[in-house]
Amino acid sequence: MSPVGTPDPPPEEPNSAWLTDEELADVRRRIPLLYVEAVPVRVDGLGVVTSVGLLLRANAQGDITRTLVSGRVMFGETLRDALFRHLEKDLGPMAFPQLPASPVPFHVAEYFPIPGLSAYLDERQHAVALAYVVPVTGTIEPRQDALEVTWMTPAEASSASIHAELEGGRGTLLRAALASVGVLG
Amino acid sequence: MSPVGTPDPPPEEPNSAWLTDEELADVRRRIPLLYVEAVPVRVDGLGVVTSVGLLLRANAQGDITRTLVSGRVMFGETLRDALFRHLEKDLGPMAFPQLPASPVPFHVAEYFPIPGLSAYLDERQHAVALAYVVPVTGTIEPRQDALEVTWMTPAEASSASIHAELEGGRGTLLRAALASVGVLG
Amino acid sequence: MSPVGTPDPPPEEPNSAWLTDEELADVRRRIPLLYVEAVPVRVDGLGVVTSVGLLLRANAQGDITRTLVSGRVMFGETLRDALFRHLEKDLGPMAFPQLPASPVPFHVAEYFPIPGLSAYLDERQHAVALAYVVPVTGTIEPRQDALEVTWMTPAEASSASIHAELEGGRGTLLRAALASVGVLG
Amino acid sequence: MSPVGTPDPPPEEPNSAWLTDEELADVRRRIPLLYVEAVPVRVDGLGVVTSVGLLLRANAQGDITRTLVSGRVMFGETLRDALFRHLEKDLGPMAFPQLPASPVPFHVAEYFPIPGLSAYLDERQHAVALAYVVPVTGTIEPRQDALEVTWMTPAEASSASIHAELEGGRGTLLRAALASVGVLG
Repeated sequence: MSPVGTPDPPPEEPNSAWLTDEELADVRRRIPLLYVEAVPVRVDGLGVVTSVGLLLRANAQGDITRTLVSGRVMFGETLRDALFRHLEKDLGPMAFPQLPASPVPFHVAEYFPIPGLSAYLDERQHAVALAYVVPVTGTIEPRQDALEVTWMTPAEASSASIHAELEGGRGTLLRAALASVGVLG
Repeated sequence: MSPVGTPDPPPEEPNSAWLTDEELADVRRRIPLLYVEAVPVRVDGLGVVTSVGLLLRANAQGDITRTLVSGRVMFGETLRDALFRHLEKDLGPMAFPQLPASPVPFHVAEYFPIPGLSAYLDERQHAVALAYVVPVTGTIEPRQDALEVTWMTPAEASSASIHAELEGGRGTLLRAALASVGVLG
Repeated sequence: MSPVGTPDPPPEEPNSAWLTDEELADVRRRIPLLYVEAVPVRVDGLGVVTSVGLLLRANAQGDITRTLVSGRVMFGETLRDALFRHLEKDLGPMAFPQLPASPVPFHVAEYFPIPGLSAYLDERQHAVALAYVVPVTGTIEPRQDALEVTWMTPAEASSASIHAELEGGRGTLLRAALASVGVLG
Repeated sequence: MSPVGTPDPPPEEPNSAWLTDEELADVRRRIPLLYVEAVPVRVDGLGVVTSVGLLLRANAQGDITRTLVSGRVMFGETLRDALFRHLEKDLGPMAFPQLPASPVPFHVAEYFPIPGLSAYLDERQHAVALAYVVPVTGTIEPRQDALEVTWMTPAEASSASIHAELEGGRGTLLRAALASVGVLG
C-alpha cells in the first residue's frame, strides 16, 4: 500500500497559536493529534441513508485514492466547528451539512504510524479521529485542487473493491459508518 | 401521582389487522407493547440543541400533564414510519422532522403497570419505548384536541420542576435525551 | 433461502399471563413482538473482542443454520431479565454473561414476514429485536437439543460465507455487532 | 470556583518521545490534548449499576475536590491502554476493570481554558476527553497521595450537591454517565 495520511490544514488557519511546519513535524512524533472525520450522506424523508459520498484525492505521492472528509481540530476550536470547517473545505460552502445533535461519534479511529496496532495507518503521525455520519442537503462543490466527490449507494459502498480503495484503513471506518446507520450490505 | 399512560392510537390506523378495543385491552395485560417516543428539538447551524419541545395534554383523568411525542408501533410498520406518523399526529404536517440516520435509540424506556420495576410507569400496560431526539425545522400545529407544544431552553428542560411535571417517569427520559445531545444542565 | 424464524420460547414460561399457542399464532399476525438478541463474545484483558460465538440450530424445516442468541420478552419481564434468560437457555447456566451496563442496544433489527421492508425476515411474524454484544466468561453448555456453539475469530465472523449461513438476515446483524466493537474485518 | 485541571501524568511515562515539562507547557497552549476519563461503577449480576466511584483529590491549590479517573493519551498508546493505565494509577492494581468491548465513548467532554465555550473548564489547556463507564470487580487501593475513592448510590451521585463538588464541569459528565446506563435520578 502506498503511504497515506490525513490531510494538512489549509494555510489560513483559524488560530494564530498554531504551530509552524517545523514545530508541527516535531509534535507529530510526540503526541497524538486530534482529528474529526465525516462520512457525507444523502437521506430520504424518513432519514434512511440513500447514498454515500466519497472523496477522490491525490495523496502526497500523486496517487489517486478515495478518502473521507477529515482534518485536525485546532486549539480553541470546538469539535462542531472543526467538523463544519472541514466539511465546508471539502464539499464547498453550499453543501448545507446537518451536524448531529449528539457529539458522540459513531466510531473512534486510531491511526498509528506503524501497522498492526489498529486497523488504521497514518505514516506521518499518531492521530485519533472522532468519526460522524453527516447528512448533506445542498450542492457539492469541492474547493480543493484535484478533489472530486463520488456518490454511490450503500450497497456499492459496502463492496470489497471500495473497501480496498480507501486509504489508511478507512474502508473499515466506512463499513462502521454504514453499520451505524443500518445500511451495511 | 395521577394515573398516567401512553396515548391510544387515533381511530384511522394504517393496518386493518389491528385489534378491536376489547382485544387490545386483553393483549395489553399479556404481552409487552412496542412504542416509539420522540423529544422534538430545535438546533442551530452547528447542530447544537437550542430548545426542546414538550407537549401539554389532558390525560384520561382530565389532568393537564406534560409529555413527549409517543405512540405504538403497528403490525407491518417500520420504526421510522411509526416515528414519523406520531410526530405528524402530535406536531402537525408542517413540522418537517429530521429523523435520525441511525435507527439506534438514545434510550429504551421500560414502562410497567406496577411501580418499582423501572423508572417508568404506565398503569394500563407493559410498554417498551425506543426513544429518539428529533430536530424539527418547520411550523408546529398540534392536531389533537387539548394539546399544546411548549418550547423551552435545555436549562429550563433540565430543571426539577419540569422533571416533576412529566408523566409516567418521562422526566427521567427527558434528562437522558438532554444528556445524549450534550446539553443536560 | 429456507424459511426462517425466531425461536419459540421453551414450555416453562415465567409468566402465567402468557398466551396459548393458538392465541400466540393470532397475535403474531396482528402486533409486532418484542425480542432481544445477543452476540456472545470472548474479550481479552483490555476488552478487545477476540472471538465470537454463533449457534448451530435445526430450524423448523430440519435445516441446520447458524443463528444468534434470541428470544421473546415476556409480559412483566425487564429487557435484562429476558436477555439473561435467553443467554442461559442457549449457552447454559455456567456461561457467566456480563450484561452491558447500558440498556441501549447496538442495533435494532426489524423482522418482517415479507421480504424487502428491511434486511431482516421472519416468515412467522413482525418482530423487533434489540441486539446486544455480551462478553461471556464461563463455560458454554448448550441446553437445547441439536444446538452447538461455534467460536471463531472476528475476521472469520466477518467473512461472506458466515454472512450467508446466518438465517433471517442475521449476517447483517452480526456485521453490525462486529462494527460496534471495532473488529469488523 | 477554584482553578481546576486535569491531572498531570506521573513521572514514569511509557513513551520516551514524550515532552519535557517546558515543552508540554508550550504545547498545551497550542494544540488540543487528548484525554480519557472513566466513571468506575459496581454492577449487579444483570449489569445494573448499583454504585458509582468518585475520587477525592487535592488540586494544585490544595483544595479538596471530587473528580473522575482521568489522564492523557500518550504517543503510540491505544485508548484502551491509556484507559487501563489511568484506572490502575487511580484505583490500584487489584481493581480489575472491565473495559468496554466498544471503543465508542458515552460522551466527549471538551475542556477549554476559558469559560463559556462548553460545560467543561480546564484553566491550563484545551483538552478533549473520551469518557467511559467502567465496571470494576476487584479491590480499590488508590495509589496516589491524598486520593480516596468514595462509593455512592446512583441516586446520591445524581444529586445537586455532588454535581457542584465535581471540578471542571465533571458534574455534567457524571450525569451523562448515569443517564447513559439508565440510572440518572
